[in-house]
Amino acid sequence: MTATTSLPRLKFELLKTDPASHARRGTLTLNHGVVQTPIFMPVGTYGTVKGVMPRSLEEMGAQIILGNTFHLWMRPGLDVMASFGGLHQFEKWNKPILTDSGGFQVWSLGAMRKISEEGVKFASPVNGDKLFLTPEVSMQIQTILNSDIVMQFDECTPYDTKGHITTEAEARISMELSLRWARRCQHEFARLQNPNALFGIVQGGMFENLREESLAALVEMDFPGYAIGGVSVGEPKEEMLHIMGHTPHRLPANKPRYLMGVGTPEDLVQGVADGVDMFDCVMPTRNARNGTLFTRFGDLKMRNARHKNDPQPIDPSCTCHACAGTSGVSWNDGGREGFSRAYLHHLDRCAEMLGPMLATIHNLHYYLNLMREIREALEAGTFTEFRARFKSERARGV
Amino acid sequence: MTATTSLPRLKFELLKTDPASHARRGTLTLNHGVVQTPIFMPVGTYGTVKGVMPRSLEEMGAQIILGNTFHLWMRPGLDVMASFGGLHQFEKWNKPILTDSGGFQVWSLGAMRKISEEGVKFASPVNGDKLFLTPEVSMQIQTILNSDIVMQFDECTPYDTKGHITTEAEARISMELSLRWARRCQHEFARLQNPNALFGIVQGGMFENLREESLAALVEMDFPGYAIGGVSVGEPKEEMLHIMGHTPHRLPANKPRYLMGVGTPEDLVQGVADGVDMFDCVMPTRNARNGTLFTRFGDLKMRNARHKNDPQPIDPSCTCHACAGTSGVSWNDGGREGFSRAYLHHLDRCAEMLGPMLATIHNLHYYLNLMREIREALEAGTFTEFRARFKSERARGV
Ligand SMILES: [Zn+2]
Ligand SMILES: [Zn+2]
Repeated sequence: MTATTSLPRLKFELLKTDPASHARRGTLTLNHGVVQTPIFMPVGTYGTVKGVMPRSLEEMGAQIILGNTFHLWMRPGLDVMASFGGLHQFEKWNKPILTDSGGFQVWSLGAMRKISEEGVKFASPVNGDKLFLTPEVSMQIQTILNSDIVMQFDECTPYDTKGHITTEAEARISMELSLRWARRCQHEFARLQNPNALFGIVQGGMFENLREESLAALVEMDFPGYAIGGVSVGEPKEEMLHIMGHTPHRLPANKPRYLMGVGTPEDLVQGVADGVDMFDCVMPTRNARNGTLFTRFGDLKMRNARHKNDPQPIDPSCTCHACAGTSGVSWNDGGREGFSRAYLHHLDRCAEMLGPMLATIHNLHYYLNLMREIREALEAGTFTEFRARFKSERARGV
Repeated sequence: MTATTSLPRLKFELLKTDPASHARRGTLTLNHGVVQTPIFMPVGTYGTVKGVMPRSLEEMGAQIILGNTFHLWMRPGLDVMASFGGLHQFEKWNKPILTDSGGFQVWSLGAMRKISEEGVKFASPVNGDKLFLTPEVSMQIQTILNSDIVMQFDECTPYDTKGHITTEAEARISMELSLRWARRCQHEFARLQNPNALFGIVQGGMFENLREESLAALVEMDFPGYAIGGVSVGEPKEEMLHIMGHTPHRLPANKPRYLMGVGTPEDLVQGVADGVDMFDCVMPTRNARNGTLFTRFGDLKMRNARHKNDPQPIDPSCTCHACAGTSGVSWNDGGREGFSRAYLHHLDRCAEMLGPMLATIHNLHYYLNLMREIREALEAGTFTEFRARFKSERARGV
């Protein structure tokens, strides 16, 4: 694989900024297409967004999806990925893909892994093979995956360390390791002539000064985009909101900003106000499989007996396939082709696969549509009003 | 609900018969649309064909699907079914639906049920309620479901009775009970002014004389269509083929003939030759969920490691969404938008929901397409050649 000069690699254009917050409206051009920001990215761990066909993702307006380096390394493995020329052709998704570095997953192996300066030694959870994941190996794998956005290999600083809240000294050691790994990633990424875009990841735990040091050092290295990692790692909500309010807007204005693993619809709206351009989270897909659905007027538990006989769709204002059928006309606009709450309640009771299939389509559509509404509000200069309306509507209840 | 004279109820037109076999090409007009026969009907037990969206069923050319009276009576229950005006609106399927009578399911409850002349007493497997299913109750439930084809309540004569192969005397008692129940069904169906079509079911176990007696008595009652029941109940394959060769062609030529619960692709082709117009079977959907796929050149186990790196779709001649993607162009015709065997193998290993989703689409498409090819061969007068080619292609191996 060689760097092709005709590929854009990454181009970020800032179209508009909100005077009342740090929110921005932008366009992110990648090798497999253009992404309108702010954006939510559905998570496709094993090369599939759980329970959704690629055509459904396209229909609901997904612009970029995630893949997990660690999991794809384990299964199907690099030989298969290489023979398909990367993840796009394998999973039949022709739009941009972002892959994580594998750092979060090896960190999650707990006692089964050993971290050193060089990298992380661990036993494969699939077949027990002794494996060694280093910044260089992560870059090599992600080059084979040919993802449009490659994440640096980092150590995800935990909120708790050995039973106590991670101290500043511990968070510093971890953050500095991630910085050294960032340099090694950048070097290996260049050596491999990877034609895509490598993002640096700001770490530093819950400590503002460490976050600022990490950020400054990464900006010095001049990445085409930056992520904020080490949030959604078990910390109290206010700590996450604190870092979200602190770090994103300090990143370079002319580069895309990605907040990793966040969050609820409320978190996304706040995150945009805090200057974030890109989000990912398993919440819409995971909650869908558990029968928890997001709607404009609050969340809804499909299992609740009050839905037993309800002819309305999940969200009468929604135009997704679950709520509006093939017509795409919402219930509120007179459409009656969607599936009823009664039907979804029944599918849930019978543990029928169609239940999570429809729920996943709805929840992802809800997230993607929320981001579309945010972008429209930013374009119209009405983001402040949008936030107020969003808050009052969500509080109304379904 | 009243019988509406503008509804066709049931109209069967015989378009062509094969001079070399009992095969027929026909058109079956029902209240929710026209069905081209011979046809395979996907099974949607709980008001959903497992793992498939109604839109996918339409895309693959499904013309009529099944629902299970017993299961829908248990969940969601008749109050919900009534409030939706029947099964069509509930499950968002606007084409014809056939419902079974519940007889097979109560029979399957084994020790938990007690059969008398009046009907079957049993405890609900969902909540333990004491319930009583009679010919009249079955008609009342199916009237609420508003299925286009209603099946009479019958006793499905088992192949084994209390540890021995059912004797002729036992099969006669059972068959005669089903005949008395057929009369009660016909009476109740008329009383309810059900606007759809009621089918009688030929029983008689593995005994030709009993089958002929059952058939003659049912023909005397003049049903708009007839089914052959009591096959696929644990008997050896040759016994099933024997009844399939014996009974269907003896039914009135001007009425549709439905062989219940059969079978493999080979069974379908033989069944058409034996004069059957309609089939249903859980095999394509159940096998799909177990990773067994039907193809033109034989069956394929997705789990087999030889698929690990195979870029071909399940069946290179298939135009289903799994094999040909949104383009609908098969691999053999140059299409490259389908999902690979390697990808499906990977989804199976990772127990990802998309695996059974795509496999189910393919298997149902295979069955429906097989029936389409049969219809085309019958129209072209080449059914004998079709059968020979089908046999040699299936034997070739994938
Ligand atoms: Zn929806
Ligand atoms: Zn196919």
